Amino acid sequence: LSGESAFIHALRTFATHPAARGLMDDAAVLEVGGEALVISHDMLIEGVHFLAEADPADVAWKLVAVNLSDLAAKGAEPLGVLLGYTLGRDDARFAEGLEDVLMHYGVELLGGDTTSGGSPRGFGMTAIGRATHVPVPSRAGAQVGDALYVTGPLGAAMIGLEELRQGGDPGAYARPLARLAEGEALAPYVTAMMDISDGLLLDATRLARASGTTLAIDSAAVPISAPEERRMDALRWGDDYELLFTIPADIVPPVAAYRIGSVEPSAGAPLLLDGKKMSEADRLGYEHG
Amino acid sequence: LSGESAFIHALRTFATHPAARGLMDDAAVLEVGGEALVISHDMLIEGVHFLAEADPADVAWKLVAVNLSDLAAKGAEPLGVLLGYTLGRDDARFAEGLEDVLMHYGVELLGGDTTSGGSPRGFGMTAIGRATHVPVPSRAGAQVGDALYVTGPLGAAMIGLEELRQGGDPGAYARPLARLAEGEALAPYVTAMMDISDGLLLDATRLARASGTTLAIDSAAVPISAPEERRMDALRWGDDYELLFTIPADIVPPVAAYRIGSVEPSAGAPLLLDGKKMSEADRLGYEHG
Repeated sequence: LSGESAFIHALRTFATHPAARGLMDDAAVLEVGGEALVISHDMLIEGVHFLAEADPADVAWKLVAVNLSDLAAKGAEPLGVLLGYTLGRDDARFAEGLEDVLMHYGVELLGGDTTSGGSPRGFGMTAIGRATHVPVPSRAGAQVGDALYVTGPLGAAMIGLEELRQGGDPGAYARPLARLAEGEALAPYVTAMMDISDGLLLDATRLARASGTTLAIDSAAVPISAPEERRMDALRWGDDYELLFTIPADIVPPVAAYRIGSVEPSAGAPLLLDGKKMSEADRLGYEHG
Repeated sequence: LSGESAFIHALRTFATHPAARGLMDDAAVLEVGGEALVISHDMLIEGVHFLAEADPADVAWKLVAVNLSDLAAKGAEPLGVLLGYTLGRDDARFAEGLEDVLMHYGVELLGGDTTSGGSPRGFGMTAIGRATHVPVPSRAGAQVGDALYVTGPLGAAMIGLEELRQGGDPGAYARPLARLAEGEALAPYVTAMMDISDGLLLDATRLARASGTTLAIDSAAVPISAPEERRMDALRWGDDYELLFTIPADIVPPVAAYRIGSVEPSAGAPLLLDGKKMSEADRLGYEHG
């Protein structure tokens, strides 16, 4: 077991807390006063999720975007965010980026906590949203025969990070977008949905396992924002935050989306990539550990 | 401006986000589906909020208790928590402590995030509760003429930490309690309420400033769990998590509580301690920065 798996396993042994498995999922769903609330919590740690020399405004942007992306995957409309902030270098610049991203999404900062601390710095965010469709989409509903789609091209974050390392413009890597409108439009139709944060192939295995199915993916059908020779890298790279979803094959998705495969009966492996069985052991994506 | 104040100031300059001031408060209030949700987020950072050699089970306990204490101060009933967890030393022991405290309070772990990271480790928690009384108590409602109360003795955490440093039993320092039942019982009657996390005197200045009043405190009336010669230390020490509240002077609080002073017209300083004006400059408590 990796460190994370061991911790999750320890949590799962709480007989009284089966919901501990929620820790492995994007966002929790909580029914309150006739509404379904969707709540996500994500952290960004220096050296793990962002470079120590990153622009703090970009870190703030990404912190909000990755949390809102979790809401997007549930078709939820954001109600607000709470920030856990470790004070340090250039706090005013972080605040600027936070303002940019909150204004971009029209989301309110409801509260949070600030603390002193050392390096590596860690930031946490909790995003709270209201589900626009019930049942709330999850990873677990894919049905054999469904079509598999992605909402947009993959690889832009990979190229952006490489540009950044060469002193260029990081583009989508620095300021990812959460597909909130797409998630809301799709929620009534999808059988399963998630955002792609750790790479298409790795995240697809998670959807496949949660649904008890195998996902057959046609690698040539996956739209990429990278040179063709980087296609397989783009399928393994994270940080693009497009939505991955399954939908009955006869339904045309209500938003622009690319059909990349289908849901098959469980074939002893979570993925069939161009007909070849693949699983987590094949280094499918980015694991933060 | 201290680091935290400067950051909060930067956030406050967001013309569109006046709620940024929520960052200085214990918990946010969000109305959803006819319910008032109360949401708190607190972090514990190694070396700031807990000793590097602390028992991880105690850290887990404290992380939950400090967040639930924020809900207690709002008279809220907990619905669940989300955990932000940095993997590291002895994760299974952290999970044990988490189980203990969640079972103690009957609270569910709804979700969260785990990540790798370095030292100092940081943990975040978001607690979500349902207000049991509307309007939800805040720090801002104290009225001139009200009586000032505290729900229990202060100083136990101070003594516990001193014991711990000498190899003894840390008691209440390691496993603080959130006054959830007291907060719920008090909510319909109080004019202002907060939990004491950073020391009675410092937190009292916050309540005084939020309410635009002065709090007169009789130091001899404050119950303490420490030797009499440590009285003034106990009034400055944090981590006890008793509730501080104001209530009309003719109302008898519905739970055991100690009357320690009164609400006075603003006297040019937030506190009158035994008749002497005091403010934040007098090193009133523990500032995590």
